[in-house]
Formats: sequence, structure tokens, C-alpha cells
Amino acid sequence: MTEYKIALVGFGGVNRGFAQLVAERNAQWQASLGFTIRIVGVTDLFLGSIVAREGLDAAQLVALPSEKGAFARLPGGHAEAFNENVIKHSGADLIAEATFTNPIDGEPATTFCRWALESGIHVVTTNKGPVALHAAELKALARRNNVAFEYEGAVMSGTPVLRLARQALAGANVQGFEGILNGTSNYVLSQMKNGLAFADAVAQAQQLGYAEADPTADVEGFDVRLKVVILANELLDARLQLSDVACSGISAISAQDIADASANNASWKLIGAAERQADGSVQAQVQARLLPNTHPLAGIGGAINAVTFTTELLGAVTVSGPGAGRIETAFALLSDIVAIHAARGH
Amino acid sequence: MTEYKIALVGFGGVNRGFAQLVAERNAQWQASLGFTIRIVGVTDLFLGSIVAREGLDAAQLVALPSEKGAFARLPGGHAEAFNENVIKHSGADLIAEATFTNPIDGEPATTFCRWALESGIHVVTTNKGPVALHAAELKALARRNNVAFEYEGAVMSGTPVLRLARQALAGANVQGFEGILNGTSNYVLSQMKNGLAFADAVAQAQQLGYAEADPTADVEGFDVRLKVVILANELLDARLQLSDVACSGISAISAQDIADASANNASWKLIGAAERQADGSVQAQVQARLLPNTHPLAGIGGAINAVTFTTELLGAVTVSGPGAGRIETAFALLSDIVAIHAARGH
Repeated sequence: MTEYKIALVGFGGVNRGFAQLVAERNAQWQASLGFTIRIVGVTDLFLGSIVAREGLDAAQLVALPSEKGAFARLPGGHAEAFNENVIKHSGADLIAEATFTNPIDGEPATTFCRWALESGIHVVTTNKGPVALHAAELKALARRNNVAFEYEGAVMSGTPVLRLARQALAGANVQGFEGILNGTSNYVLSQMKNGLAFADAVAQAQQLGYAEADPTADVEGFDVRLKVVILANELLDARLQLSDVACSGISAISAQDIADASANNASWKLIGAAERQADGSVQAQVQARLLPNTHPLAGIGGAINAVTFTTELLGAVTVSGPGAGRIETAFALLSDIVAIHAARGH
Repeated sequence: MTEYKIALVGFGGVNRGFAQLVAERNAQWQASLGFTIRIVGVTDLFLGSIVAREGLDAAQLVALPSEKGAFARLPGGHAEAFNENVIKHSGADLIAEATFTNPIDGEPATTFCRWALESGIHVVTTNKGPVALHAAELKALARRNNVAFEYEGAVMSGTPVLRLARQALAGANVQGFEGILNGTSNYVLSQMKNGLAFADAVAQAQQLGYAEADPTADVEGFDVRLKVVILANELLDARLQLSDVACSGISAISAQDIADASANNASWKLIGAAERQADGSVQAQVQARLLPNTHPLAGIGGAINAVTFTTELLGAVTVSGPGAGRIETAFALLSDIVAIHAARGH
């Protein structure tokens, strides 16, 4: 029987969702996955922190109100976030890093990842910042310390993309990809096709919880650009930085553009893409593209995400599924732990 | 450096494609996949057989004419297929079984698999017969002999389906699936949508090499039924036999049906599906279904295949890609070897 002791870093929707999965499913994981999870610590800049080497009650964590310093309500808990202590000294085998994405320097999440990896603790994360900006450094750090750094959830929540391409398509030679990698912008374009104006579609996406109060990162392609960098560096051995990826969004697309496209059996989609060039370099970009409706990505509607990989031996292989969601993203953390468990020979 | 010694059982399009991959790519596999392949034997009921423990020239094998007894032309080759000798006594670590699919009893392929597994030799196969009819027995035999029995190519050629669901979706709890699992019938339906009559569309599929001279297995759903049994037994722990799966095809669909569907923003598709029921049993069927064009499978056109998995934690996850093809199916054998290599701790 294998048990992984885990510390949750950040306790917003994703790690709360992960705690919910632990509360509801830990017993069945022993039989179905071959391991169980014990949550030994939680830290969150807003809620505070708690360590309990004997294990925390996952259901009690899930029920904690979202109020400043709330962890102080639990026996042994603190209103302050003792991040370094929870990461390094809670006895965790791995941390689940799910703090907010900082697209400028990836902090403080990158520091959290470094602390864990340097201490011989595995990291699973759904955070785009550290992966898009510092993956090479963090992967090297993980290798040196003989631990895993896994981040399936950084691209399409729990929908398998990185692992599909890295493992199941190994040897097929991925040459490039194009993807619908932002659910909010795809939802907006789908609703514009149904007749809504841009501003109304954005407002609807906000009401449904897809879009942030400031939808800029979604509709201007900045969120997609982070994911393009992650995918290109991972699957095409590129060494792209954000500034290498030309980026434009969907805010300039008018209702008339959408109607014209429909009349011509085509659809506007915000596409993040990268392709290996003849000289070995990788060209990547984010832009709205007019796709014929026969294109595999043209029919991807609503908040669904999808990626088409172009491979040498199989041609196009496409995977689609949810690109966001609390439980869907929490599942990505679980799938990373499943992969770590398998790689350790179980 | 790891080298896998492999015997090819059956030398039609798929294993000839595999030999071509070896001829062209073996050197690069050392760096990209961590292993190389040495072909130590080939046997084929029509072409004869050959064993060479020091390794056969893959390019020479690829160039062999498709004539009865052709292996006798090579030094040490025979016009007869010494199947048991090649499988058991060529010194192979694994066999690639790619003989014809026998949907009645899975023979002689099942016997070939048994011989290998009993002798402690891994089996990779693209053959639906042994997997649909005898997977439970062959998996148990593999376990007892501490070898692998892998068959990714039995469902959608090299497009990862079994491994995607088994590994990348582990823990997401697959509850059912529906798929377009036969390229010929999907091509016929797509061409009927473009205005061709059923018979003309079938003739065109035959000219393009998609359909056999006798297209019955493709258009009446029998080929899909084998794949539904494989997927249901593998992913839903069902114990289905072919007779448990109600099966009908597309031959009764008229040009008028297709036109009526198009007028209603819908498409006819041949769907193989299975679903876990409330009582734990699994219901499966193959039938033509009228899908609204918003359905993720409605837009899958031509000879492309696709499967949508319904999962508890992610909702619907869909993968699409080639469902047939010589090199595409040969890649499935390679991907099975990659998985065996990974599972052995590399």
C-alpha cells in the first residue's frame, strides 16, 4: 500500500476541488489507482496555513469558509501563510501548487516550486506561470534532485494533452500543433455566431464564471500565448519566451465578420499554433483565424478546448475536452500523481 | 543501450510498414526512444519464413516481392511458413502479430499469441480477432509469464485510444464511450452527404483502398462490433462477447435520409457505443445514429475515426485521428514497444 503525503499550496478553486476529490474518493483510489493521499499541510496567502503530519480531514478543509485567515479557526492553524514551512517541513512527499498565474515572472509560484524540488519533494502544478517562464530550470532542478515536476493541468485542465503527446505519440514525431486553448474566447466567438454582440457575449461569459472581471488576458490571446509557449517548448523542444510569440486576440472581430464567415461555411477561431520549420527553428503565434467548417477545430464550440497535433507518422491527431473547471483542473493534479506513481515502478 | 529482438508474424501491409520504419528510423530511435529494434525472424502464410538471429536487413525485407514463397529467395529463407519455429525459436524478445483478422475464432492469430506468451515473449498486435475474442485469457497468460500483451492498434490504428483512456484518464472514471470506428463506412456516409448514391460511394471507397472487395464487414457494422467489444472490455471492465452487442449498419440509409438530415442540421453516423448501467452492467451496440451537427462526432468526416469518452470528472473527452493505413497501423506496434520499454523501468 502506497500513501502520498501532500501539501496544498494555494487553496482556491483547484486545490479545494482536489481536497474534495480526496474526501470523496480516497478509499476507492487504493483499489483503482494503487495509492491513497494524505493531506499534511495547506498554505494560502489569503486563508493562512496549517500543518498536520498525521493528516488533515479533507472534508473539513473543503468546508472552510473563504475568509481572510480562516485556517486560524482549525486546531493548530494559522492566519498567516507560512509557505516555506508548509512546503519544506510538513513531511510532504509532494506539493500541489495551484496559486494564481503571474504571467510576468511566475512568482511567487516559481519560488514555491524551487523550494520543494530543492528539498527532494515532487511538484505537481496547474499554474501556467512557472511552466511557461521557467520550465527548463525547474525540470533540471527536478532531475538533479531525483523528483518529478509535472504540470498536465497547465494547458487544458484535466484533458490530457502533454502526456498524450509525450507518451502516447512518442515516436510519431510531432511537427507542430494548432489549438483552441482558451474557453472564454471560444465561448464568446460561439455566442457571436449565435447573434450576440462582442460586449454582450463577454458579459455572458462573465456571468457564467468563464471570464474574469478583466477579460483582457482571455480575449487578447495572452492566456493562449502562455499555453503555446508551454506546448512548443515541451513537444517541439523549442526554447521560446513569451516575446517570441506574436499575439493578437478576438476583440477586433465584428458581428459582420462572423456573419460573413458563416455565409461562407467558415468560422473564426482564436488559434494558438507552433510549427517546426525546415531549419529546425520553431515558429509560434496566437491569432484569430478563419477556418473552413471542414477543419477539425471549426466545430469546437462553447467553452471546449482542443488541440490538433500534426505528426509525421499519423498525420493529424486531435484531442478535445474541458479547458477549465474546478474539478476538471483538480483532476489534472491527480493525473500527475498517477504518472509519478507509474514512473516510480508501480 | 537497449535492443529489442523482434519476430514479425504476418508480413502484409502492417508489418511491412513496420519493417520500413525500422529501415528508415532505427538509428534515430536510439536517441529519441532509448532503444533500437533488430528483426530476427519473419513468417507469413503466403510468403514463407526466415530466421536470422544476427538480424535481417529491414530494407531488404521491405523490397521483397509479394509472391508466394518469396522468402525462399533470401539466404536461409523458406517458402513455407514455419510459424511455431519463428515465434518460439528465433531468439525474439517480442513478436509483432499482424496476420488477418478472423472474427469467428481469432485463429490462427490467437495460437500465435499463446505460443509467444507461453514462451516468455512479449506480444504486440494490431489484430482485432485475438483481442476481441480472447483478451482475458491472453492477458492472464501474459501476467503468468511476466510479459506484456499490448494491442493499441486493434482499435484505431496508431491513434492512441486504449492507452489514452487507460493511462491518461486513469482516475477520471470512464462511464462509457461512443465512436466512429470504421473509416470506410464514415467515408461512404460523407460522400453520400456530398450527393453520391450508396453503391457509388462504396465503389469509390474500394477504388481508394479503404474498402475490401467485400465491404460487408465495414458497412454492416461487424468491424465496429469487434472494436466496441475490445473497448468495452478494456475500459469498462465488461465481459462482452460479440453476441452481446446488437449490431446494424448503414446499408439501409437512403440518399433521402441523408438529405433530410442535412436539412435539419444533422448527420447520420455509424456509432459504436457502450455505457455502464446503474446496475453495473454494460450495454453496447452498433447502429447508425442521427447526430445534431453540434455533436462532437458529427463533424468527423471522411476516413477519420474518433471516440468520445464520457468520464465522471472531465465530462466528454474526444480523440480523433486516422483509423487505418499501413504506416499509421505500424506506428501502433511501435507505440506498444515504447509502452513496454517504459513499463520495464526505462
